[in-house]
Amino acid sequence: MDDRIHEHAAVLVDWSARVDAGDDVVVRVGEGAHDLGVAVAGALGERDANLLACYDSPELERAYLRAHGGDFESDPDFELALYERADSVLSLRGTRNTSEHADVPGDRERAYSRARQRIREARLATDWVSTVHPTRAMAQEAGMSYAAYRDFVYDAVLRDWESLADEMRQLKEVLDAGSEVRIRKEDDATDLTLFIDGRTAVNSTASVADDSHNLPSGEVFTAPYDTAGQAVFDVPMTVRGQRLEDVRLVFKDGVVVDWEAGAGGDVLGSVLETDGGAKRLGELGVGMNRGIDRPTGQVLFDEKMAGTVHLALGRAYDACLPDGETGNDSAVHVDLITDMHREGTTLEVDGEVVQRNGTFRWEEGFAEV
Amino acid sequence: MDDRIHEHAAVLVDWSARVDAGDDVVVRVGEGAHDLGVAVAGALGERDANLLACYDSPELERAYLRAHGGDFESDPDFELALYERADSVLSLRGTRNTSEHADVPGDRERAYSRARQRIREARLATDWVSTVHPTRAMAQEAGMSYAAYRDFVYDAVLRDWESLADEMRQLKEVLDAGSEVRIRKEDDATDLTLFIDGRTAVNSTASVADDSHNLPSGEVFTAPYDTAGQAVFDVPMTVRGQRLEDVRLVFKDGVVVDWEAGAGGDVLGSVLETDGGAKRLGELGVGMNRGIDRPTGQVLFDEKMAGTVHLALGRAYDACLPDGETGNDSAVHVDLITDMHREGTTLEVDGEVVQRNGTFRWEEGFAEV
Repeated sequence: MDDRIHEHAAVLVDWSARVDAGDDVVVRVGEGAHDLGVAVAGALGERDANLLACYDSPELERAYLRAHGGDFESDPDFELALYERADSVLSLRGTRNTSEHADVPGDRERAYSRARQRIREARLATDWVSTVHPTRAMAQEAGMSYAAYRDFVYDAVLRDWESLADEMRQLKEVLDAGSEVRIRKEDDATDLTLFIDGRTAVNSTASVADDSHNLPSGEVFTAPYDTAGQAVFDVPMTVRGQRLEDVRLVFKDGVVVDWEAGAGGDVLGSVLETDGGAKRLGELGVGMNRGIDRPTGQVLFDEKMAGTVHLALGRAYDACLPDGETGNDSAVHVDLITDMHREGTTLEVDGEVVQRNGTFRWEEGFAEV
Repeated sequence: MDDRIHEHAAVLVDWSARVDAGDDVVVRVGEGAHDLGVAVAGALGERDANLLACYDSPELERAYLRAHGGDFESDPDFELALYERADSVLSLRGTRNTSEHADVPGDRERAYSRARQRIREARLATDWVSTVHPTRAMAQEAGMSYAAYRDFVYDAVLRDWESLADEMRQLKEVLDAGSEVRIRKEDDATDLTLFIDGRTAVNSTASVADDSHNLPSGEVFTAPYDTAGQAVFDVPMTVRGQRLEDVRLVFKDGVVVDWEAGAGGDVLGSVLETDGGAKRLGELGVGMNRGIDRPTGQVLFDEKMAGTVHLALGRAYDACLPDGETGNDSAVHVDLITDMHREGTTLEVDGEVVQRNGTFRWEEGFAEV
C-alpha cells in the first residue's frame, strides 16, 4: 500500500478530526476507498478509538432509491441514534463512477434527502470530516492519468497544515480589519470591489478545531455585504452537470445587473433566477493551498488552489456574520473562480496589495511594484 | 449481474428475514459481497424498508485490531444504540481471503469479542440472518473453481424453502415423538444410539419465523441426553484451522471413553479435554438440503447436506430442551459429520427406519428393505 495512504489517514485522524482515545468514530467507506479505510482503521486502533465502518456505495444507494416507492420514513430511528451518539464521522469518498446516480429520478433523491434532515443535522453536529481517496473514476473526471491524479490529491492533502494555518491567520487578520476588497486584472474586464467591514473571515484549515470539515482545504473566506464592478471567471466550473466557462458578471449595488457566459449560459441564467439572493454574492474566498496547482473541475479542489479567488452567488455562511445579523439568503450557493496568476493581477484590501500575480505579499517572489 | 444474485436477495429478504415496509434493516456488506449488497438494497427499497449499510471488512478489522492497545471499551454506545433499534441485521459474508486474520493475535480477537457482548446480544435479538456471497477465496477454500462454487452456493440457497420446510416438519414429528435414534452402517464401526425422549427437534428452515438464522440452512436438530455405542465421522472437518479426518468415538453412559482420528488427533484431544461437557454430545443434526451435494470444508454447508448426520461435542441448544431443564453445557460446540449414503446405512427412530442409504422414507427411491 502506497505510504501516502497511511499519511493521509494520520492527517485525517489527528489534524482534521482530532480523534481521542475512546471516541466513537463512524467511518463511511466509499466503494473505491477501501485502502484508505484500512489505513484509517489502523490509525483509529492505534489511538484506541472505537470504530464502526459504514459502506458508502453509490451503487447500493442507486438500487435502493430506484426501487423505493418514494414515500420515505423521516429519520429512521436506528440511523439517527447512531449519528447522535457518534463523536466523529469520517467520510472517505472514492467513487468508482461519478455518473452512478445519472438514472436516479431527481425527485426521488430530493425526497430521500428531505426525509433525512435530523440525521444530517446529527452528523453535522459531530466532528465530521469529508475527504477523498483517489479513484480511477475521479482521475477520469479530472482528465488526468490515475498516477498523476494520485500525486495531485496527495500534494493537496499532505501539506504542513500547521504552517499553512499560520499563513492563513495572516490573511484573516487583514480581512477582519479591512473594509473593501478589490480584485483587478490588467485587461479591466475584471475590476470588482467587495465590501466586508464588520464581517469575519473564516480559516478553512481542514481541521474541526477551526470548524473546517473538508480535507483537503486551504482557503480563507468571508461574506461581502455589497459588491460593485465586474469580473470574469476564467476557471471552468461544472454546475448541475454542465460546464460553465468564462462567466462575466456585472454588479451594481450588490446585484448582478448584466452577465454573459462563454459556455453554460442556460445553467447560469437559471441559477440567477432562483430567488432574490441568487443575484447577490454570499462568499468571497481566497485559495491558499499551494499543493493544488491546476483546476480539475472538482470544486472542492479548485476553490482551494492558491492564486485563485472564488465568489459564490447565493447563500452566505453564518460564521462570517456578526451575531444577530442575517447574511445573503438563497437556495443556491454556486462558486465561480477566477485565476489571479496573470501579470497585472492584484488583490487589494483597503488599497494595500495583499497578492500580486498570484503571490501573497508574505511569500517569496512577491513583486513590490 | 447474475440473475441468481437477485433471487438470493429476494429469498434473504422475504423468506429468511421476513422484512416488512418500514423495518429498520442493517445490511453488513462483506468486502467481497458488493453485488449481493446492491441486490439486497434494491429488494429493501422495493419493500419500502429503511436501509443502513455497514462494511464488514476483515482487512479493516485486522488493521484495527493489530493497532489497538487491547484494552477495548465495553459495548460502545453508538454501535449498541444502532443494533438495539434495528429490526433486522442481514450479514452478507463474502471474504476475499479466508486467512486475513491469520496474523491477528488470538488474545486480541478474544478481548475484542468479550468487550462486545451486549452489542452481540442486541444483534441476536433482531431478526438477523447470515448468508454467503460466493467469492473466489471461498471457492479456493472449497477446492472448487469459481464458476462451480457459485453453482454450488446458489443450488444450496435457491431452494423451494416452503416445500423443504414441509418435509422437515415430517422429520421433526418423528423425532419429537421418538425416544431412541440409532445410526448404523454395515461395517459395524458405526452403531450408535442416542436417547432423545422429552427433547424437542428444531427445524432449521433458514427463516426467522422458525428461529433459524442462516441462509442456506436445511437441517433438523435435537439435543440427545445420553449416547451409547460408537461412530466414525468420515466427512473431513476443519477445527481451529486443522483438518480432522476419520474421527472415531466410543461412548459409554453418554461420555466419550475412547477415540481416535485419522488426522487432527491433537486438536480433537484438546477439544475433548476442554471441560466435562466436551466429552458428551450436545446436538444430533440431520442434513436435509438436497442442493448441497458435496462437502466443501465449510461447516455451515457441510452439516446441511442431505444424506449426512452430524453430532456435536459440547454445548446443547436451549430450544431443544424442556422448560427448566439444562442441557449439556460446555465452552465448545464442535460438529462432526458422517455420510449416510453408503449401502447398508440406516437412521432409525424407535426401531423404524427413517432414512436408508441417504434417502428418507418419504423420498422417491427409498428402499423398503
